[in-house]
Amino acid sequence: MEKYSYYERKVNYYETDKMSVVHHSNYARYLEETRIDMLKYYGMPLEMFEDMGYVIPVLDLYGQFKESIRFGETIKIVPKIEKVTPVKFYFAYTIYDETMTKVKHIAKSSHCFLDSNFNPVSLKKVAPELYAKFVSFAEPEKEV
Amino acid sequence: MEKYSYYERKVNYYETDKMSVVHHSNYARYLEETRIDMLKYYGMPLEMFEDMGYVIPVLDLYGQFKESIRFGETIKIVPKIEKVTPVKFYFAYTIYDETMTKVKHIAKSSHCFLDSNFNPVSLKKVAPELYAKFVSFAEPEKEV
Amino acid sequence: MEKYSYYERKVNYYETDKMSVVHHSNYARYLEETRIDMLKYYGMPLEMFEDMGYVIPVLDLYGQFKESIRFGETIKIVPKIEKVTPVKFYFAYTIYDETMTKVKHIAKSSHCFLDSNFNPVSLKKVAPELYAKFVSFAEPEKEV
Amino acid sequence: MEKYSYYERKVNYYETDKMSVVHHSNYARYLEETRIDMLKYYGMPLEMFEDMGYVIPVLDLYGQFKESIRFGETIKIVPKIEKVTPVKFYFAYTIYDETMTKVKHIAKSSHCFLDSNFNPVSLKKVAPELYAKFVSFAEPEKEV
Repeated sequence: MEKYSYYERKVNYYETDKMSVVHHSNYARYLEETRIDMLKYYGMPLEMFEDMGYVIPVLDLYGQFKESIRFGETIKIVPKIEKVTPVKFYFAYTIYDETMTKVKHIAKSSHCFLDSNFNPVSLKKVAPELYAKFVSFAEPEKEV
Repeated sequence: MEKYSYYERKVNYYETDKMSVVHHSNYARYLEETRIDMLKYYGMPLEMFEDMGYVIPVLDLYGQFKESIRFGETIKIVPKIEKVTPVKFYFAYTIYDETMTKVKHIAKSSHCFLDSNFNPVSLKKVAPELYAKFVSFAEPEKEV
Repeated sequence: MEKYSYYERKVNYYETDKMSVVHHSNYARYLEETRIDMLKYYGMPLEMFEDMGYVIPVLDLYGQFKESIRFGETIKIVPKIEKVTPVKFYFAYTIYDETMTKVKHIAKSSHCFLDSNFNPVSLKKVAPELYAKFVSFAEPEKEV
Repeated sequence: MEKYSYYERKVNYYETDKMSVVHHSNYARYLEETRIDMLKYYGMPLEMFEDMGYVIPVLDLYGQFKESIRFGETIKIVPKIEKVTPVKFYFAYTIYDETMTKVKHIAKSSHCFLDSNFNPVSLKKVAPELYAKFVSFAEPEKEV
């Protein structure tokens, strides 16, 4: 299977604020869209985890806003699974302009699996094959 | 019990768009805050309905945008329960500026009760006292 | 030029609320995306109006929520320019499920053109050719 | 002048997602509300900077999600100006539950001043008294 390339996205008018650029809170939403799109591409759609009774919350999130994004722009978001452990996994992201020559934003997030009572779950224990699959898509960590 | 007067609200920066005014999609959120605040005031908090296993979706919503609202403004929202039937209830709202001399927005919404399977529920049947209470807060309908 | 067909859209996770369906305030955003996409298709992108110094606010908005929309669904939104006058124009919309066999939502909105001081502008006066073009895309009004 | 204490906030229904907790993208909004409230308290409202022709974008943002936040909760957010330089300033935040006994979220953000062309501005140069005031509210940095 080919590596997931990027998630493409037009910027919506309602995502701008009175600075005439995308409000920074929307970036977390762009990243979520990207994660979900990538997981689906890799045959592990979020709905599958939901059907298993798990949710995947964000544990932490770091973002650096390098260039503002404006209405009318198309952005491309390159995600990467940086690391997978039995109970946590780590993503990194770069948001580019449409031509992919300008970096708009870089980000990192970490996540875990929780059961329906919001207790942590070891993916390795409850779904070892799925865990192995997840690990196989991980790429060695790079510094942001 | 005194009639609920109004819901007061500062406008947030992130609610503006590049027209430098509050994006129109946020008005539905202001109205929801107002409904929830009024229901709580009347001793029927949304959480109570949730604990009974019900959700209260919006059936329809009409809004007229008369004056734009800007960051830094405080708005006051006057809601009214216009009509209550066993299965539906109707709200009307006026959004004013802080001094309540200028009408910013008028709106109407209708709602129903659904059980956890999203089937309609007659409040009159499942909670007659609560229904009677609801009816007692209704005011005769006026034209918008 | 062929009539604009529909705007297609995946539902995002962050658009759901604790009822597990899309929060109703997001529908206004879906409609805006649709308007903007249609205007672009017809060679009248919103950016063009912005470059002329105009903004296009919503005057009123009515929506009827017929079926809830869930995360993972793809929706298709069919817009229509119902009427165009020198100072106002009227849209109607139907939101369908992916197969276009189920109506999720119907809506209507009206809009005007404002100059940079937020004063109304007659499109017919300031841009007669653009106005004529706009009129040519209008379809006779139908009842919702 | 007393140190700014905390920003209090009820959680809105529309801020929840289908995990039944506040969607993580809203935390950045809570922090913005807090910053704006604190700046106002210290006599430096955001509107004042806007009137001077400046905007104050976010440069980077880090957040750690320690406990989920639910509809109906009231949260209290304690902000701190950690450091001020002529061209950048740094905030830290702790989001608590209503009783301030449980930490929900910790965060850090950095910001700069841009003129209307989005070029960086030295506050020290363009408004030395305002800069001095800003510095006077800063507190020594602590590790998160």
